[in-house]
Amino acid sequence: MRKTALKKDDAEGYDPLEFRGLTFHDATPAFREGSDTPRAYLERCLETIAAREPAVRAFAALNEPGAREAADASTERWKAGQPLSPIDGMPVGIKDLLETRDMPTGMGCEAFRDNFPRRDNAAVWALRQAGAIILGKTVTAELGGAHPGPTTNPFDPARTPGGSSSGSAAAVASHMLPAALGSQVGGSIIRPAAFCGNVALKPTQGGINRGERQSTSMSTHGVHAACVEDMWQVAIEIARRAGGDRGWPGLFGPATPPAAAQPERLIVLESEGWPDLDAATRSGFEAVLERLEQGGVTLIRRGDNPLVEALEKAVGDARAVCNAITGWENRWWQRNLVDEHPEGVSQRAKEVLARAEAMNVEDYRLALLKREAAQVCHARTAPLADGAIMLSCPGPAPLWPGDVPGQPLAPRPTGDPVFNTPSSMLFAPAVTVPLMSVGGLPVGVQVVGQQHEDARCTAIARWMLGAIAPVVAG
Amino acid sequence: MRKTALKKDDAEGYDPLEFRGLTFHDATPAFREGSDTPRAYLERCLETIAAREPAVRAFAALNEPGAREAADASTERWKAGQPLSPIDGMPVGIKDLLETRDMPTGMGCEAFRDNFPRRDNAAVWALRQAGAIILGKTVTAELGGAHPGPTTNPFDPARTPGGSSSGSAAAVASHMLPAALGSQVGGSIIRPAAFCGNVALKPTQGGINRGERQSTSMSTHGVHAACVEDMWQVAIEIARRAGGDRGWPGLFGPATPPAAAQPERLIVLESEGWPDLDAATRSGFEAVLERLEQGGVTLIRRGDNPLVEALEKAVGDARAVCNAITGWENRWWQRNLVDEHPEGVSQRAKEVLARAEAMNVEDYRLALLKREAAQVCHARTAPLADGAIMLSCPGPAPLWPGDVPGQPLAPRPTGDPVFNTPSSMLFAPAVTVPLMSVGGLPVGVQVVGQQHEDARCTAIARWMLGAIAPVVAG
Repeated sequence: MRKTALKKDDAEGYDPLEFRGLTFHDATPAFREGSDTPRAYLERCLETIAAREPAVRAFAALNEPGAREAADASTERWKAGQPLSPIDGMPVGIKDLLETRDMPTGMGCEAFRDNFPRRDNAAVWALRQAGAIILGKTVTAELGGAHPGPTTNPFDPARTPGGSSSGSAAAVASHMLPAALGSQVGGSIIRPAAFCGNVALKPTQGGINRGERQSTSMSTHGVHAACVEDMWQVAIEIARRAGGDRGWPGLFGPATPPAAAQPERLIVLESEGWPDLDAATRSGFEAVLERLEQGGVTLIRRGDNPLVEALEKAVGDARAVCNAITGWENRWWQRNLVDEHPEGVSQRAKEVLARAEAMNVEDYRLALLKREAAQVCHARTAPLADGAIMLSCPGPAPLWPGDVPGQPLAPRPTGDPVFNTPSSMLFAPAVTVPLMSVGGLPVGVQVVGQQHEDARCTAIARWMLGAIAPVVAG
Repeated sequence: MRKTALKKDDAEGYDPLEFRGLTFHDATPAFREGSDTPRAYLERCLETIAAREPAVRAFAALNEPGAREAADASTERWKAGQPLSPIDGMPVGIKDLLETRDMPTGMGCEAFRDNFPRRDNAAVWALRQAGAIILGKTVTAELGGAHPGPTTNPFDPARTPGGSSSGSAAAVASHMLPAALGSQVGGSIIRPAAFCGNVALKPTQGGINRGERQSTSMSTHGVHAACVEDMWQVAIEIARRAGGDRGWPGLFGPATPPAAAQPERLIVLESEGWPDLDAATRSGFEAVLERLEQGGVTLIRRGDNPLVEALEKAVGDARAVCNAITGWENRWWQRNLVDEHPEGVSQRAKEVLARAEAMNVEDYRLALLKREAAQVCHARTAPLADGAIMLSCPGPAPLWPGDVPGQPLAPRPTGDPVFNTPSSMLFAPAVTVPLMSVGGLPVGVQVVGQQHEDARCTAIARWMLGAIAPVVAG
């Protein structure tokens, strides 16, 4: 379906019919037979990084010596026919919110400038066990929030890559890495992936052990990659070793990527972002839906079924509910941080904190109730369809010229999470695939499933990538 | 009901008819009228600490200058008639697992010898906002597990104070402090309180914000005190400010201690510890039950109702379920810790880690299922009674002569949590009260309620303390 030519520099724009990312799963047969090695694969990544990092600025830190050492060890294992896993030798980027024992953890925040805990986040620990190469820390928006880091969109340096998993999205999209870890509270995995043309999995809540990052109730680790195969393999290798979050059963699914599966029926979720869509994005998404119908999928829209309408209403203020829940949950430690480092936290983050500090526990309880009620509404739609489909972002990545001193702060410099907060709030798995371009920039479409149906979403996403021709719009 | 004489040194033994602990709520009227001050109250605590700490060894750290400064500020607020809360000026001890910005956090573990994060745990942060005085860090068993610290039982220095909240229990029991925070995964709040003659609340799971300590799915912060009034006031002042754990609605209940309330019916929970009880403890507990019946309470035992029998069966392997869940959840970071500090972690902890590392994710999922099923069984008993009553510990605190080099490690040097893992597993609130002595040592009895009925348990416990004469057994 896709052309396979590798485009090393896409800064002139994005064509979903042409673009092909850097993959790993198809490199390993050559590792086994000896015509390629993990070390050589790594060196190619490092060459791309050398070429593109000055403009893309995806990394907060790199550990080239450590990566080379790990790649050599992996090379030996493949040579001996004893790789630790299918991702043995895969160079991976780690969002700089997650601790790594061999690199600092800066959290995109001045207050953490010197933070260097000598520990591995649970997912990083699992990746090392699987033989993956922890090559670098990828830029995060400050503290996983909205205040952007320096990363630019690989397809237009004047635009945001999205956030908060900015560097992970951009590093994968610019062929620097085949996969990178992100994390999502509201929209921080799926949105940047959608803005950068990646595939990505935001698992069911609790699917991948967050390790030390358990302080919010609706955050997940997830995986950016150039293809579904690598995405799934990374996720399941982590989950098999580190399990899920405490109290959750962890990611369910096969030990190798699920085969493509055509859905019979999909619910179309509009969500609260729908009325504000630009015409090109809306018509592009409608064209995707048409192609799905032509491909034999029955679509169920909000007017077709009262349970779907009830679900739309239940997630109709998802952004506000997510902000309330997360604001309250972060309030204590962010106040601690600001008290300790008054100059070390952005004004944007301080304004979020101020809103959270105006809340009381009853406000929080109400937000939890709304979330729980929405999850009930979502569960009741399970018998209707194989999953839901929706936009992954409200259009192409917006321009981001930077904050202007003296001017009011732009509210969402990394883009609007309005199409991401529903799946976050529902604790639902979401897989985004690059099925559209609008104005020469990527726009993602996501499959959202019932809790624990991560593998089923992945199978549907894989089918869509193979069966549905991408739409070029605007 | 109780004599009010203050016994400063109880090391010669414990008489539940005589003993009265150090209380705070009844000191504040004198703060208001000026005949006493928080500073003077603090100095009395410091005098007791000076006298008893050499034998009891309850503290891992003290911040006397900071405490005096905070007490002076509180004194001014009371003088001005503007205390921040009813616990303004209360000296409080903080279990040394919880971070405090002004004292090290050693976790009872050699590997954390130099650990001094300049942050406050969410509960500590809330206590400071309420005007409480953070006087010291209390000894914890290593990492909140079973490997004991140096603390001795205030009523017999040859015995354990229980664990892992060893120092909190002993400091309150020896009149050093009116209240202290503990935390419980399996039995770490209720058991040491029971061994030391305190009252204590282990709230509903999620009731009190654990802050940075969210890495296990069945752990709670709780409060040790000498009376129900102080216990409740500390808990609710924290919860009003810091809320509960992320994703939980937090502690429900009144802003001041619930009035005593006589229950109509109580379920008697035997639990898996029952067959192994010594005769004195068993007959002492049966005597408590008799007094409850004489007081007008209908008791429902496992033979009386199949739902109670089902609950007993569901918690019949609570200890193993708790160990499996906690072992799995701690596995990743404990491995990190041991790898980083091979000599900094006890052999006892390493053996726990080795058992956890033999688990796989399916074992964990099965343990979660057992926990969830037990919670359903518990919920179904709600219509039967106002709560449940059970022993808080399997008898008086055991002798603990210390590990002997070359000998096998004693499995439970801080005592057996067998009467505590049921409420932990059920996410249920538990309030222990000192209603028994066995052989001149305290033994607690606990009220266990449905989730979120913390206030109701507290009201029943308060009624029991007033209406049921303690039993002297053995």
